[in-house]
Amino acid sequence: MKAKVYVTLKNGVLDPQGKAISHALESLGFDEARDVRQGKFIELELADGTSEARIEEMCRKLLANTVIENYRIEIA
Amino acid sequence: MKAKVYVTLKNGVLDPQGKAISHALESLGFDEARDVRQGKFIELELADGTSEARIEEMCRKLLANTVIENYRIEIA
Repeated sequence: MKAKVYVTLKNGVLDPQGKAISHALESLGFDEARDVRQGKFIELELADGTSEARIEEMCRKLLANTVIENYRIEIA
Repeated sequence: MKAKVYVTLKNGVLDPQGKAISHALESLGFDEARDVRQGKFIELELADGTSEARIEEMCRKLLANTVIENYRIEIA
């Protein structure tokens, strides 16, 4: 089975990568870009029958730093 | 307006980060994890009326390395 995990920084947490992308877009002439936030998009191939609770545990233990990051799970 | 860009490695391209995550999950006892692929999830705050073509251009010029990466755009 497949699952997707979206890991994003919590609001208020500084996003240096997002800032760097934003400045780069501006320097390339993309003035439309107001703000950019970058996160992680993880695609998991899992054994059939893996529970959402188990994926939550993977997120809390490894995939996301829950102090500064949020995560969202999508089971395909 | 908001747009989301998902940048993933093309099939067949080695994903060392995904491999590292996969091994780490195994070492934590998550034997269910068969394969892991990691990509980027970019949230763009853009001026109203920015066209999808313009966002495509941002992807081709900066957000994705189209030689080894695919990108998908979602306009919120």
